[in-house]
Amino acid sequence: MAEITKYTYRVEPQQVDFTLRASVPSMLDCILNTAGKDAHNKGFGVEVLQQRSLSWVLSRLAVELDRVPEQYEEFSIGTWINDFNRLSSTRNFLLESRGEVFGRAVSQWCMIDLGSRSVADMSSMADVYRAAMVEAASPCDKPLRLGATEPQHRTERPVVYSDIDFNRHVNTMRYVEMIFNALPLERIEHNDGVRIDLNFLAEGRWGQTLIMGHAAEGEVSHFEISSDDGRTLCRARVVWR
Amino acid sequence: MAEITKYTYRVEPQQVDFTLRASVPSMLDCILNTAGKDAHNKGFGVEVLQQRSLSWVLSRLAVELDRVPEQYEEFSIGTWINDFNRLSSTRNFLLESRGEVFGRAVSQWCMIDLGSRSVADMSSMADVYRAAMVEAASPCDKPLRLGATEPQHRTERPVVYSDIDFNRHVNTMRYVEMIFNALPLERIEHNDGVRIDLNFLAEGRWGQTLIMGHAAEGEVSHFEISSDDGRTLCRARVVWR
Repeated sequence: MAEITKYTYRVEPQQVDFTLRASVPSMLDCILNTAGKDAHNKGFGVEVLQQRSLSWVLSRLAVELDRVPEQYEEFSIGTWINDFNRLSSTRNFLLESRGEVFGRAVSQWCMIDLGSRSVADMSSMADVYRAAMVEAASPCDKPLRLGATEPQHRTERPVVYSDIDFNRHVNTMRYVEMIFNALPLERIEHNDGVRIDLNFLAEGRWGQTLIMGHAAEGEVSHFEISSDDGRTLCRARVVWR
Repeated sequence: MAEITKYTYRVEPQQVDFTLRASVPSMLDCILNTAGKDAHNKGFGVEVLQQRSLSWVLSRLAVELDRVPEQYEEFSIGTWINDFNRLSSTRNFLLESRGEVFGRAVSQWCMIDLGSRSVADMSSMADVYRAAMVEAASPCDKPLRLGATEPQHRTERPVVYSDIDFNRHVNTMRYVEMIFNALPLERIEHNDGVRIDLNFLAEGRWGQTLIMGHAAEGEVSHFEISSDDGRTLCRARVVWR
């Protein structure tokens, strides 16, 4: 049985926002890059999958941040897989700095066939995957399954080159940025803790237009991003403490 | 006299585009982050300046890339300062991989006073700065001074939270992304070498709308990004080989 693997980071100037603390999107980016790095190091990274015309796709993510670290603050992200089946795998994250846990995350991934763009069976990776499993509970509630939202606000924009990643679809981080760009700046400035739940339902493609609906009630905001062909691509919920 | 300082990198999956090579914007980002890292390591990074209510601001940048490296390819960026006066400093970059130079860059920086948002005199940093100077010529032509463009195409978009960096203005990389999002995907896919010249003339701010004009003739594209108050923020020229 494997152990939790820790990766260490420092908040670089390009990760901080106008508050001189790491932006919440940059922390999500760091969490997702840790997933990629750990998969790579353990023999089931995207480059191994790409050779077999497969790739990892994030299906759900929940992140809790009690605070965001400051510029040049050092922190670690511990990551481990504690569950998988043919269609989904669960990867966990624990964020620590100055001897304290300040964040937790749970992600659920599936594998897609790059030819058919449909979900692939993970059984072929079972052996290498099983060797990386850690018997430790997830550090927070699993990502919520989010329902449809009745939007109060609506914005749209085209999918552009910089949105498209190695998977040839709109990168997760672009949805996260769209969501944070729609939140009030005051809320981002006075962040005493936040939980974000994200569901990824379909792929956004170059040439499409993204339509984002947004509804807020008190400390809870709901988001739904669709493509102009009517498919829902991403749903999110942001809850401030 | 100091020596050229080399920083080593690997092309991570989050830096590659749909071609599975590093995107040109991700290489510019890496060049600029190298500048920040080297300034930090040598005692004149943004965090030192911020304590004195000053910050570095990029005024011009020229980048030549003979090719873009592949996913997981290791490369180095050597960087050195070879010129400075009261108002401007010149930092150079040499990009190498597999024993070959594949890129060169020259950047010109000024210092701004964060209170008045005006250009500050660099003389106060002269001693620490002089110690970092290297007597080596710039590896390519200095950034061009670009004139106004007669646009053939025009797009606009609001300045949003994720555009704003630690300097409280629109980050350089957002302009670079806007420019590359306006270029034909085929040109990005078949990249046999490119030179980019960028001039930064004024700061973009939250709440403004960015208006981008674009004109192309053969292998040369010109860009001009303005704010809705009529000020020109950034001009760029992209030349494909």
